[in-house]
Amino acid sequence: MAAIAVEADFTAWMGGVQERVEAALERSLPGAQQAPARLHQAMRYATLEGGKRVRPLLVFAAGELAGADPSRLEVVAAAVEMIHAYSLVHDDMPCMDNDVLRRGKPTVHVEYDEATALLVGDALQTLAFQLIAERRLADDPGLHMEMVRLLAIACGSRGMAGGQAIDLAATGKQLSQLELEYMHVRKTGALIGAAVQLGALCAGPCPAALEQYAHRVGLAFQVVDDVLDAEASTATLGKTAGKDSKQGKPTYVSAMGSARAKAFAEELRQGAHKALAAFGAGALRLRQLADFIVLRKF
Amino acid sequence: MAAIAVEADFTAWMGGVQERVEAALERSLPGAQQAPARLHQAMRYATLEGGKRVRPLLVFAAGELAGADPSRLEVVAAAVEMIHAYSLVHDDMPCMDNDVLRRGKPTVHVEYDEATALLVGDALQTLAFQLIAERRLADDPGLHMEMVRLLAIACGSRGMAGGQAIDLAATGKQLSQLELEYMHVRKTGALIGAAVQLGALCAGPCPAALEQYAHRVGLAFQVVDDVLDAEASTATLGKTAGKDSKQGKPTYVSAMGSARAKAFAEELRQGAHKALAAFGAGALRLRQLADFIVLRKF
Repeated sequence: MAAIAVEADFTAWMGGVQERVEAALERSLPGAQQAPARLHQAMRYATLEGGKRVRPLLVFAAGELAGADPSRLEVVAAAVEMIHAYSLVHDDMPCMDNDVLRRGKPTVHVEYDEATALLVGDALQTLAFQLIAERRLADDPGLHMEMVRLLAIACGSRGMAGGQAIDLAATGKQLSQLELEYMHVRKTGALIGAAVQLGALCAGPCPAALEQYAHRVGLAFQVVDDVLDAEASTATLGKTAGKDSKQGKPTYVSAMGSARAKAFAEELRQGAHKALAAFGAGALRLRQLADFIVLRKF
Repeated sequence: MAAIAVEADFTAWMGGVQERVEAALERSLPGAQQAPARLHQAMRYATLEGGKRVRPLLVFAAGELAGADPSRLEVVAAAVEMIHAYSLVHDDMPCMDNDVLRRGKPTVHVEYDEATALLVGDALQTLAFQLIAERRLADDPGLHMEMVRLLAIACGSRGMAGGQAIDLAATGKQLSQLELEYMHVRKTGALIGAAVQLGALCAGPCPAALEQYAHRVGLAFQVVDDVLDAEASTATLGKTAGKDSKQGKPTYVSAMGSARAKAFAEELRQGAHKALAAFGAGALRLRQLADFIVLRKF
């Protein structure tokens, strides 16, 4: 019974955060009627009502552990989610992964057009930095500027965008587990790590153990993504299933097989828990999120 | 003789700033051998050794008037130029203006490929924000964060990216002078205005008269661009000439004819001078830049 109670409590917490972040995104995005209206409509289409909001959940879980003000966390969460949404819009474009389905809907370049998709991604990235800059998000101005710097490093050419470049170059090749990790630490891990750190920074300096947690959870997220891409259906995922192998992309499943990939994800989940050992009960949400990320079915 | 002496002095000043900014860009961009190497090479290709560096020149001219430290100005100038370079790379892509020549060289998607061009623009935008965040650029931390906010507003969906969206939607239409101004204040004017403001902010709050100057110079820059696109050769411009009319884009030349467009640019040049009246001799470089922008032949 205890396990079920925790589960229900976690689900309620997730729902609360998701709702709060949706409202923050809704408020932060330019109105659909504001000029240039088509661009703003497409920005809203790309961002609102979509996804599990894993990164915002991590912002809130880390921020709550650190004792941060939720009105700060919702701004940071919205900014991080905008960066994520921008990366999806650009990744889906014909010159990249050329995908037509995302979060159960046509991708932005299909619903609108390629030029609009390009500008949507560009403008969402900018808006994320604007959000971080225009609200007081840390007591110490130095820590506030550190948030801008951290977010930039996480999504730049040595972070998320660089991981995407490595991914493109690796198509059709077989990578070792180490090479895969190098790629995914950048492509997915960097922004997930930033989400955790930024959440904590809203209250003060980020403890080193949280960075360790973020690293493991970020990698686990990608391993599970690879397993789901290979095993789940398009309907369950809300995005095209099986596209990695179809596009000849190296994955954890192609590198180590499905069973070992699952064992690796479980190992990372336990490592994430271990990184939280010193925090006691305050890290409950971070523990539950590690479980959620590894045990999810979509 | 006096006019010639000033001209030579201005040319030397421009050369000095351009050299300094080139060195700052060189240092700030990831090395060509650093992984992911192809992405970093393409980022350098898109940014180094190119263009008149009008925005960096404005950063320095405004900063020198305000008494800012040049070691701050070079960082801001590099950041603004990276934003400009990112916008050119994305604007040239096939889904946008589909251009093959820029600054006398093949555009990034031609020299590399479309996916790389997309990521180059994405990562250059990020790096601009990183540069602003990782160095102390203002004495007052509030003014420093204001720089991040200003830059974001200038290039977002209500600034540069929004102007580009309006431009795309206007292709094939005839716009009035007022509609053209609405578009260009965003597409070109916003970043030029930010360059002036950011330069001044390195020393302290930005005087309102400088914003007026920036508005007029930004608009003048675009009017002259339209005239040159219609009248100069591809060899002189280093980019495809005559493409606006070929693509059915509304321009100041198509809206008011070449002669009236030139008179309008001259009016804006004089207005820019007028905005500087209160500053006296300290605004010499800003005056010379207004002249340079309007009287240039490329």
